[in-house]
Amino acid sequence: MIAAEPLPQPRVAPPNEDEIEKRLQLVQARMHDQGLDILVVHDPDNVFYLTNFANYVHERPFVLVVPASGSPRFVVPELELRHVDVRSVGSIELISYAEFPAPPGRQWSDRVADTVGRPGSIGVEPNCPLFVVEAMPTPPQSTELLDEIRAIKSDYEIGRIAYSAAVLSEAHVALMEQVKPGDMAALLASETSKGIMLRLLSDVPDANMLATSVGAVVQPPSVSDDPHNFTNVLMTMEEGGPHVSVLNAVLNGYGAEIERTFFLNHVPEAARRPFEVMMEARSLALERTVSGALMSDVDRETRAVFERAGYGNAVLHRTGHSFGVTGHEGPFLADSYDQEIQPGMLFSIEPGIYLPGIGGFRHSDTILTTESGNVCLTSAPDALSDLVFAR
Amino acid sequence: MIAAEPLPQPRVAPPNEDEIEKRLQLVQARMHDQGLDILVVHDPDNVFYLTNFANYVHERPFVLVVPASGSPRFVVPELELRHVDVRSVGSIELISYAEFPAPPGRQWSDRVADTVGRPGSIGVEPNCPLFVVEAMPTPPQSTELLDEIRAIKSDYEIGRIAYSAAVLSEAHVALMEQVKPGDMAALLASETSKGIMLRLLSDVPDANMLATSVGAVVQPPSVSDDPHNFTNVLMTMEEGGPHVSVLNAVLNGYGAEIERTFFLNHVPEAARRPFEVMMEARSLALERTVSGALMSDVDRETRAVFERAGYGNAVLHRTGHSFGVTGHEGPFLADSYDQEIQPGMLFSIEPGIYLPGIGGFRHSDTILTTESGNVCLTSAPDALSDLVFAR
Repeated sequence: MIAAEPLPQPRVAPPNEDEIEKRLQLVQARMHDQGLDILVVHDPDNVFYLTNFANYVHERPFVLVVPASGSPRFVVPELELRHVDVRSVGSIELISYAEFPAPPGRQWSDRVADTVGRPGSIGVEPNCPLFVVEAMPTPPQSTELLDEIRAIKSDYEIGRIAYSAAVLSEAHVALMEQVKPGDMAALLASETSKGIMLRLLSDVPDANMLATSVGAVVQPPSVSDDPHNFTNVLMTMEEGGPHVSVLNAVLNGYGAEIERTFFLNHVPEAARRPFEVMMEARSLALERTVSGALMSDVDRETRAVFERAGYGNAVLHRTGHSFGVTGHEGPFLADSYDQEIQPGMLFSIEPGIYLPGIGGFRHSDTILTTESGNVCLTSAPDALSDLVFAR
Repeated sequence: MIAAEPLPQPRVAPPNEDEIEKRLQLVQARMHDQGLDILVVHDPDNVFYLTNFANYVHERPFVLVVPASGSPRFVVPELELRHVDVRSVGSIELISYAEFPAPPGRQWSDRVADTVGRPGSIGVEPNCPLFVVEAMPTPPQSTELLDEIRAIKSDYEIGRIAYSAAVLSEAHVALMEQVKPGDMAALLASETSKGIMLRLLSDVPDANMLATSVGAVVQPPSVSDDPHNFTNVLMTMEEGGPHVSVLNAVLNGYGAEIERTFFLNHVPEAARRPFEVMMEARSLALERTVSGALMSDVDRETRAVFERAGYGNAVLHRTGHSFGVTGHEGPFLADSYDQEIQPGMLFSIEPGIYLPGIGGFRHSDTILTTESGNVCLTSAPDALSDLVFAR
């Protein structure tokens, strides 16, 4: 890290009306720039970002209609009216439809059509489902404006993410204190998730479970070379390593993650050099992930460390992703992703290599970029000597 | 129920190649009828149905390309190749892309473009994201053919769902044996979910967690009138009722649910008549949910029971939904949904009424329609006298 700045203060309270209003103003300013009269928002993460109301996608659509100025209108199933009312923040006009399916004239699409009206131009999200696109009066255009706005966090969002990062850091300490050869992945996951949930509910009794998900997995060395292999939850921890811990979570609407490569009782000789090279790549990535740098350059330079060490073919993924109202989103520290890093962005910074027969090597943290460098919101040992546990 | 048929035998083994091949043949037959040369499948539930591979939607797309004849081709991120290989069943050609994002020429959309080619006509799912639609060489048409095929279950699917229903029925017994005034909703949920997961893992050690989700909630009478109000997980059970238990789950890829309206220590006078009317509506719905009936008629006649009793305004939702590789999908027992019930369909059958100040009244089961009537795959007491627990 370049700058040792004071850590942002963790927050747990819901956003106030000003915070939501500021997000809406950012959206409406970009709509103006893009010549959009209406923005139709369907992605539940974007709906949550703009309303603090969390839903999951099912057959009853929730559609937020943002006008060029003034308050959004939110088309919701009648069944959920009270739920929306309890959770939503800010000035929103609620429009309900009967049920899904419903008779002609009383369907969700009828209410969306009334609400959208006949504007000159309509924007939709890139992942807008075709059935919503087809409910529009004129062909809409795809816009990434919400992704662009969400990429730069407000102080409020940073505080919420700092809280999630602190809870995960605490849970990671507890996990490292107990893990031993023979432990079953499913039980480690269950214990760790339970600890995280109890901490969340003790701090935030009305935490929104529809905006909460916890992932807690440890991969033993026999599978850690396959980073998305969580297929056998009965697999057990082993002597040696590299084991890889993976804690990622969205806690009450805001995401973070922490991951570590660690060893039990001893470090196999074959694991020493890859660990060292991973640390070198990570160190470079942490140094280069600063305002003004291109995200593609960070990834290219980080990857070059692995290539120079002869591990080019062992790289399976980009250097990092971002966080926000999800635990995994753009922008990305990735090849050809030629965007400039700006203050208020967050990245995971997790360069990794995967060697069949030896294992996987990857740390990950939740890193905030600032005006003058970056700060790490998560906290855990990173040196090899601190990651060998005698059990 | 009309017919007391033998209960389908629960199954837990993954589908064999024949089962997957039969599903593919159903798809290709409908593609032929609809004049489609290619079907592009993105919805993870449809991908799972056709491959037994479960993914969740993130920024790295998984796109299954089904030709008019022959094996599907599956475009997947390189990072997931081994994972796909471990879980998928049937003849599938895997095509991997580098990463998301990636340099031009190596992106997911490049590989999808190669794979789709230049067919005469392309079908996509109604919920296909706009960014996938826009990656097609010519404008695709929306088709519900997969929903239509999935609506009628094979014997194999019925066996898998019968297993999920049996596990939930067992968990519901345990829940009813322990619930008492003062119990916290979050702890009941945690205990019940844990029991379900342990049972699943003991029966199916390699159960797919990406195709598993468990919901276990009990609403006390103070909130049971708001059927989607799970906002306060610290809420506690109360004397009296109506409490409503809600157990729904997708266990290793196949869904079911069971719900009951129950009472602790006594039945408030004001709850007796609504319970009785709910039972009358449920009884009618169970009787009418048989092959040949229109789903809209079942809903209309069931709703009429509530209307005649003066509870028309207390109805917030349709009579039922279906199950399959999800716990909640079409077809629906709903107003204006004029489809004919066929053998091999499943429905939840859960007519309910919601009375502020009194509470919610709803049972739900997992019901299979057969040639000669229907059978209930879940099992729990339904009479009021069996649903008052002295604690």
